[in-house]
Amino acid sequence: MVTRREANLAILSSAVLAAAPGLAVAQTPPTLELPPPRASGGKPLIDALKQRRSMRDYADRPLPAQVLSDLLWAAFGVNRPASGDRTAPSWRHSIEIGIYVTTAEGVWRFEPQGHRLKSHLRGDIRAQTGVQDSAGTAAVNLVYVADGNRMGSTSQEDKRLWAFTDTGFIGQNVYLFCASEGLASVFRGSLDREALARTLQLDRHEFITCAQSVGYPKG
Amino acid sequence: MVTRREANLAILSSAVLAAAPGLAVAQTPPTLELPPPRASGGKPLIDALKQRRSMRDYADRPLPAQVLSDLLWAAFGVNRPASGDRTAPSWRHSIEIGIYVTTAEGVWRFEPQGHRLKSHLRGDIRAQTGVQDSAGTAAVNLVYVADGNRMGSTSQEDKRLWAFTDTGFIGQNVYLFCASEGLASVFRGSLDREALARTLQLDRHEFITCAQSVGYPKG
Repeated sequence: MVTRREANLAILSSAVLAAAPGLAVAQTPPTLELPPPRASGGKPLIDALKQRRSMRDYADRPLPAQVLSDLLWAAFGVNRPASGDRTAPSWRHSIEIGIYVTTAEGVWRFEPQGHRLKSHLRGDIRAQTGVQDSAGTAAVNLVYVADGNRMGSTSQEDKRLWAFTDTGFIGQNVYLFCASEGLASVFRGSLDREALARTLQLDRHEFITCAQSVGYPKG
Repeated sequence: MVTRREANLAILSSAVLAAAPGLAVAQTPPTLELPPPRASGGKPLIDALKQRRSMRDYADRPLPAQVLSDLLWAAFGVNRPASGDRTAPSWRHSIEIGIYVTTAEGVWRFEPQGHRLKSHLRGDIRAQTGVQDSAGTAAVNLVYVADGNRMGSTSQEDKRLWAFTDTGFIGQNVYLFCASEGLASVFRGSLDREALARTLQLDRHEFITCAQSVGYPKG
């Protein structure tokens, strides 16, 4: 079965591919290669925890490809290649959270296996990822989307509860990465999930949990 | 109004105070002093993320007081003393999650302001903090408890949703601290919340979200 997203991608793919100059990865393949993530480094953990905070004012400056690569790996990348396990845990190992990356140029989906970005949509939808004006100004807004099909037969309420909890783990990784790199970030629980799900052309079994802005601090 | 917990503390306080040799802080004051948390250090963040994993087998060895102090600060300590802000964010800045520390000797409540442990109950209730046998063997089991009164007039379902999300932020801090320090940890979503709430003598507006084991790895 071809999902809505796949059908849409097939139609849009040629248009989407030219749309990512800010990422410096806007080449022709529909799967955009991120540089490999850094293997070590960053601030000492205690120092990163000291700097952890929410910041809502962003400079008009894109994230370099290496920073985006490292950010996504820190968020929910594969940290144990032999098993495919991740930097954050998930409820009953369901690994149900996917990350959509929205920038001024378009939307990509992060593929942790292979550490790739897959083109998803053309255009700037950042302002739809939050109800505060600042959502539209951060270089990147991450949108966390749960795949309910990966969570078995538990109730919809429980799926929501655990998908949100699992998003918290990932969100804290992003906060600490930003603290380590001198980036600003805020985790957003207030957003119009229905409208954004339509824009992202999510399938029925997918649902948005939260979003998170990342960018250079203003001033 | 005297809460159930305060009344109980008044009755038990003299018995509780002699009950914490493993923490090396079982002196007479009802508020146990933790050593000040470390001001910096730990593994570089990327390295800690690389080591992040769930581990369920624990050595029979208590945590030194300094490690416990650093752990609790990393989890949800005050990282900006001027504002009282924390190492993890919370929904609408409600700062609703409290941490109970259970060991072989008793139960304490972490007071981030002042970075203290307050005696709560005598006895080993660790096995009640999870449904897996290993819950009873970790040196420390943290129990995350939300104070619904701090979350305003939103629905009970929403309070649960955001309190669990906020617990995820804290849980990831604990995971990364353990990765940095060579400790083992697992975040537990499966536990008998009603029974544990009775044991902890929680007030009606308080509810348990999750628990997390921390200890030295076995072998």
